[in-house]
Amino acid sequence: MTTSQDPRDVAPARGLETLDDEQRRGTGDMDPERFRAAGHATVDEIADYLANVRGFPVFPPVEPGDLRGLFAPRAPTEPEPVAAILDDVVRLVVPNTTHWQHPGFMAYFATTASGPGILAEMLIAALGANAMLWRTSPVATELEEVVVDWLRDALGLPAAFSGLVTDTASTSSLIALGAAREAAGVHASARGIAGRVEVPRLRVYASEEAHSSIEKACMTLGLGREALVRVETDDSLAMDVTALAEAIAEDRAAGMRPIAIVATLGTTSSTAIDPVAEIAAIAGREGLWLHVDAAYGGAAAIVPERRGPFAGWERADSIVVNPHKWLFTPLDASLLLSRRMPMLRSAFSLVPEYLRTLDRAAPVHDFNEYTPTLGRRFRALKLWFVLRYFGLDGIRRRLDAHCAWASELAAAVEADPDFELLAPVPFSTVCLRARPRDLAAREEDPEVRADLDDLNARLLEAANATGEIFLSHTRLRDRFTIRVAIGSLHTTRDDVLRAWEILRTEAARLRG
Amino acid sequence: MTTSQDPRDVAPARGLETLDDEQRRGTGDMDPERFRAAGHATVDEIADYLANVRGFPVFPPVEPGDLRGLFAPRAPTEPEPVAAILDDVVRLVVPNTTHWQHPGFMAYFATTASGPGILAEMLIAALGANAMLWRTSPVATELEEVVVDWLRDALGLPAAFSGLVTDTASTSSLIALGAAREAAGVHASARGIAGRVEVPRLRVYASEEAHSSIEKACMTLGLGREALVRVETDDSLAMDVTALAEAIAEDRAAGMRPIAIVATLGTTSSTAIDPVAEIAAIAGREGLWLHVDAAYGGAAAIVPERRGPFAGWERADSIVVNPHKWLFTPLDASLLLSRRMPMLRSAFSLVPEYLRTLDRAAPVHDFNEYTPTLGRRFRALKLWFVLRYFGLDGIRRRLDAHCAWASELAAAVEADPDFELLAPVPFSTVCLRARPRDLAAREEDPEVRADLDDLNARLLEAANATGEIFLSHTRLRDRFTIRVAIGSLHTTRDDVLRAWEILRTEAARLRG
Repeated sequence: MTTSQDPRDVAPARGLETLDDEQRRGTGDMDPERFRAAGHATVDEIADYLANVRGFPVFPPVEPGDLRGLFAPRAPTEPEPVAAILDDVVRLVVPNTTHWQHPGFMAYFATTASGPGILAEMLIAALGANAMLWRTSPVATELEEVVVDWLRDALGLPAAFSGLVTDTASTSSLIALGAAREAAGVHASARGIAGRVEVPRLRVYASEEAHSSIEKACMTLGLGREALVRVETDDSLAMDVTALAEAIAEDRAAGMRPIAIVATLGTTSSTAIDPVAEIAAIAGREGLWLHVDAAYGGAAAIVPERRGPFAGWERADSIVVNPHKWLFTPLDASLLLSRRMPMLRSAFSLVPEYLRTLDRAAPVHDFNEYTPTLGRRFRALKLWFVLRYFGLDGIRRRLDAHCAWASELAAAVEADPDFELLAPVPFSTVCLRARPRDLAAREEDPEVRADLDDLNARLLEAANATGEIFLSHTRLRDRFTIRVAIGSLHTTRDDVLRAWEILRTEAARLRG
Repeated sequence: MTTSQDPRDVAPARGLETLDDEQRRGTGDMDPERFRAAGHATVDEIADYLANVRGFPVFPPVEPGDLRGLFAPRAPTEPEPVAAILDDVVRLVVPNTTHWQHPGFMAYFATTASGPGILAEMLIAALGANAMLWRTSPVATELEEVVVDWLRDALGLPAAFSGLVTDTASTSSLIALGAAREAAGVHASARGIAGRVEVPRLRVYASEEAHSSIEKACMTLGLGREALVRVETDDSLAMDVTALAEAIAEDRAAGMRPIAIVATLGTTSSTAIDPVAEIAAIAGREGLWLHVDAAYGGAAAIVPERRGPFAGWERADSIVVNPHKWLFTPLDASLLLSRRMPMLRSAFSLVPEYLRTLDRAAPVHDFNEYTPTLGRRFRALKLWFVLRYFGLDGIRRRLDAHCAWASELAAAVEADPDFELLAPVPFSTVCLRARPRDLAAREEDPEVRADLDDLNARLLEAANATGEIFLSHTRLRDRFTIRVAIGSLHTTRDDVLRAWEILRTEAARLRG
């Protein structure tokens, strides 16, 4: 975050070095004109940051515990000028964050707080509306209905789906499994599931590659981690439906009660795609709730030509797609769609007197009745901004580009005798490892396998130490796996090629 | 939101009426210089809004379903210019929200998205950091540790408390009760609580005035609504501890397992204060988790002279205080403190391979291990901004002012023979109703009671219809109760006096 060269941004900061009258003596908020000046200064800092983010190492050169001591141990008694706080942002905060906006951020799932998304967040904060009730912001509620429909249609899903925007996929999947628990007919929300002899063990099925949020939802909901049956996967790391059917049959025979199947379309480790049509058939036959976790991959369904792997997801009871992953929306924003909204409401609705809306003739739609939390930010506004700014075709073009660059990288990895592609690349994430040709031949040897893991762990560290890129890892088929997750709007084809160059160079260097 | 008179804000908006090159053809994000211009235009809209918010009716003149049709039924295929989107914000969004920033907003609990809070939100969005792991933003993690300590110390709580920032009190209390469920020793998170003969019915105790989020947490956690024992309250609407002790004894005798007590310091309806020292003694004796819900009232403990009613809360296992309520922080931000963080971690930790941090020598603090969700916004930044901008003394001055204005209003209500104060006013919220003297004498008559309810429901509607104020209601002792919740930094003493004038005038008018 350097000082901008644009003269326009100098003036607004003027005067922020001193306390304003309200700070010194008042009982109110920052004066609107003071906010105007401070807001302009902050926008300039942000614009400078976005222009110069490439100059930072993606991951800052710090160790755990290095940063606490940079900050005062106690909150100040006296107010401080805005300029002092903004200076500390530049001096203490910005250099010490992991730069999710950096073009070289290809860890986890890359994401973008896009320009229009940031503008919307500014307005969301300033309006301060709580979207818990229609009454607490009619437009927040009705615009949420609108953008949910926009996204549902854009994803090619039928009008039978309705939904809402939550914070994260963890919450969306928790709500879905809460609804599944309710649909099982044991009256869990009302009566609980402890100490009731008529309630059997409840079971949820997901592939061994499903995201940890599914397991965490089972913990939170009182089903327990043990309730989650991890179904084995096939060669492409997709759920084995024969194994699924067998697991359900075995559990039923053992007196347990299957309640839900979670199909993942784009797993976190390798972006594998469970065969959702076959899974939907099993769910239908068994009377189980089908939840589709497409938190990352679902965005691709906005491109009609990429909808093939999604065929059958329209039979799901619920679907999660995260706009804050691959739809360029700032954290947090998760879309939860369901064909069975009344069941979500049964699981989570509670209306105390102080939340009743008394004075309206028409029925009121209060989104908090579908969620475990009451307060809700006006997240619909940022989806509306992002979809309008880019347009669906603009989003398609960007998703296509990311997929093309990932394919290009995957082809390069496959063509390199010293590297190995560890999973298919259906979207924009490439799983790879260094596998020098002299070691490849001897991989049956456990010691060589350990050496390969060690080499790749060191390769990941070395690549990240360049500061130019930031990658994360997983294990696939018990092999240490480096993930290159393309999905930021700031990443270009050249950045992807540079990442590949870094991996090759560092691998060669490590091998001496 | 009028056009600002300041010439400074005209220039930046120039050029936003056309698409930029990136929008038309590109695969990237909005250009940083374009963001600078759009950001300045957005700041000007916000500053104008904050300067002119008093000109809007607090609650917009709309009925459910009026707004959906204002928006396009489908997302645009082509991109749209920023100016078109910002124009629609002014035209469609702003006039149709409930104005939480309006000085006359005294419904629910008033809150403020303060100037420094909005600036911080701009930076939070722009950095786009996910505070799920230390590794995904070291400064977000360590600054969160710092501001949690700042707030704990400011609240006068001992260093044995540590904590984290969540979205809302619903989540904070869910985590606390999840930890209580875990502390009960039935291994709920691992093994679940369904279908296990060794797991008895689990019970949670809270007053009949406790917030709905406690009941919702019981639903979500699989304890069930029935697990929540609603303990009766005394004349001040505070929990009756004798009734509490009896309820626990009865449940134990019936073979149930008490696990937690929730004491509320500042209930939602009337801001009543449960006797936390006595409750802590019972919790200690019974070996139960004590969770303190001080989501609204807790802020007052920042004022040392107002700490009296909190004596004993330092013996709680967990405490929630919401900075987005009475600490002038934009939604969402909830502080969860606990003396038993490892138990929170036992209840909610899950670390899959792809979230492991491998390359650090020192132990890493990953906040997601304490929460039901994985992704987390960098909320610590806004607490740091707000605390520094106002300073603790500035916050104290504002809290004192709100309490003083509430006391003044309460005194006026008590002095008026045609109104009635329905609850003590320990903080800044006044519960009242019209009770014309001719009806007061005949209140034993059920018909008169119904008339009083009806009169006050109409009074609420009439007061809100002025557009100058916005109030909400509750029921206390089965009486329709109007709440005047003072707590916005935009509210002045004059606004409170005006609210009282409106209530008196409208009541007189309704009585004809």
